[in-house]
Amino acid sequence: MAKTHFFPNDVVHFTWDKQHQPVLTIDSGDTVIFETREVTDNQFSLESTTEAIASLDWNRVYPLAGPVYINEAEPGDTLAIEILDLKPKGWGWTAVLPGLGLLPDDFPDAYLRTFDLADGAYIHFREDIKVPIEPFLGTMGVCPKDADGSPVMPPGTFGGNMDTRQLTIGTTLYLPIQEKGALFSCGDGHAAQGDGEVCVSALECPMYSSLKFTVLKGKSIPSPQFQTNGPLTPKVNDKGFYGTTGVGPDLMTAAQDAIRSMVDYLAETYKLPKVDAYLLSSLCVDLKISEIVDAGQYVVSALLPLAIFTEPS
Amino acid sequence: MAKTHFFPNDVVHFTWDKQHQPVLTIDSGDTVIFETREVTDNQFSLESTTEAIASLDWNRVYPLAGPVYINEAEPGDTLAIEILDLKPKGWGWTAVLPGLGLLPDDFPDAYLRTFDLADGAYIHFREDIKVPIEPFLGTMGVCPKDADGSPVMPPGTFGGNMDTRQLTIGTTLYLPIQEKGALFSCGDGHAAQGDGEVCVSALECPMYSSLKFTVLKGKSIPSPQFQTNGPLTPKVNDKGFYGTTGVGPDLMTAAQDAIRSMVDYLAETYKLPKVDAYLLSSLCVDLKISEIVDAGQYVVSALLPLAIFTEPS
Repeated sequence: MAKTHFFPNDVVHFTWDKQHQPVLTIDSGDTVIFETREVTDNQFSLESTTEAIASLDWNRVYPLAGPVYINEAEPGDTLAIEILDLKPKGWGWTAVLPGLGLLPDDFPDAYLRTFDLADGAYIHFREDIKVPIEPFLGTMGVCPKDADGSPVMPPGTFGGNMDTRQLTIGTTLYLPIQEKGALFSCGDGHAAQGDGEVCVSALECPMYSSLKFTVLKGKSIPSPQFQTNGPLTPKVNDKGFYGTTGVGPDLMTAAQDAIRSMVDYLAETYKLPKVDAYLLSSLCVDLKISEIVDAGQYVVSALLPLAIFTEPS
Repeated sequence: MAKTHFFPNDVVHFTWDKQHQPVLTIDSGDTVIFETREVTDNQFSLESTTEAIASLDWNRVYPLAGPVYINEAEPGDTLAIEILDLKPKGWGWTAVLPGLGLLPDDFPDAYLRTFDLADGAYIHFREDIKVPIEPFLGTMGVCPKDADGSPVMPPGTFGGNMDTRQLTIGTTLYLPIQEKGALFSCGDGHAAQGDGEVCVSALECPMYSSLKFTVLKGKSIPSPQFQTNGPLTPKVNDKGFYGTTGVGPDLMTAAQDAIRSMVDYLAETYKLPKVDAYLLSSLCVDLKISEIVDAGQYVVSALLPLAIFTEPS
């Protein structure tokens, strides 16, 4: 009979490495409850200010809960992870981290904002701007083949730091198993994020998660796949969207142009400081590839849900 | 008082050129009804088969209705185009055109399918696969600055062949005016298309359109922007989505990998020939940039709406 396990919240690792000893061994069909730290490993708190960024110890970034060894899992199989529940733990932060993000030259200075998430439903970005909480784990991965202390930040075909907002409650994620036992780890909880995570931070938060693991023997996939069980942006679908575009021969530049126009639009229309417009874009603006086939000129769109804007109370 | 004009359906042009004489001159606030040809200029019909592709006269591709000269419009202003109504005219086609599309090496052979759209609501792709009709004009543009016979296919900051699916009924498109009078033209009707238009064809169709034009004096934008008036995929939001991914250092390659996995998924799960899975992806699968900031490794997702699959009747 399938069991529920509680992953110890005092054990973390900071790299992908096949030598990491499994902390928990489970059977296919079992569920694991995780309590994960936010991505700085408790270096930030609700009271933190921008100054905390300068003293960040980057060796402690990306604490992951794991590895979980799943019996029967062999390279070439697929690991299905049903995301049964996710719950941010009370607070979170977002930031410009100098040198990182989609527009590092436009926003060279560190900037941190923290948020009380006790509301449970919304991030109160400003009195009249409420971003719905739609939590997911930024990082869920199996151990990459032959991993030997590789950093957590870049994702790969093994999953990892995918930062993919559709991996929320009700979605099932499929990962290609690369090492015996799968050696699953997770962390980097996000209370909200738009497609792209453009400022490099989502709404980063400590989080409770309930994940059910099933080994699909003999099913192989080349990279992560997933199935959602409902609409993609259910909490903001009723009031329309504002879109900006980037058009040109390079998708990266087009994405930058689209976000730059979105930052300008938000700043002008809603009287936001540009850096706050950049953070807000990271939390709720979705990047789409509108057109990728027209004679070497591509269109990337950035879509802002207008439902986040409310009347000041 | 604002007027409604009927654009003559026997006048087309095939390039962007500031020397094209205006066919219609209107005031800001006026509405124009267009009846546009499908993108091959009547070289294909409902009865066409794949053989028609080989004999296509490419000089007749992209017939545009226009130019429309809008009084008051000056370079530096913005043209707002309210998309009041769109109605495909009865039939349409989609195709693999050799050498074009996101996966030209995977699908080297010509392939054409035509569809009766008399239903008005769905494209009946197979007995058990119905893609909702969500029409838009693939091409809406003002004349590019100093245009001198440039081809229609690549879009630009002036708009043009944007192939952006959100430009459907109820959306307002904003274009940066580059020549006096704006010199607006349109065409390339699409009955349905996913973000990306991956096989290079949407569901191409002749179409009626009703567009209202307003000049916004003194408002400047760097590239097209738009505002929708409702949810983005209202007809397929209720049954969840299947996502495939591409992960890597190049967004174009990641998009190709995501679509290649989607084609495989559709072919295996729904027993579709791969070339039909590719066409179906072009009609309804949306490309998203899930993550664009993680240490040079990006995630592009391709999302398939599961609501298109019905029980065979």
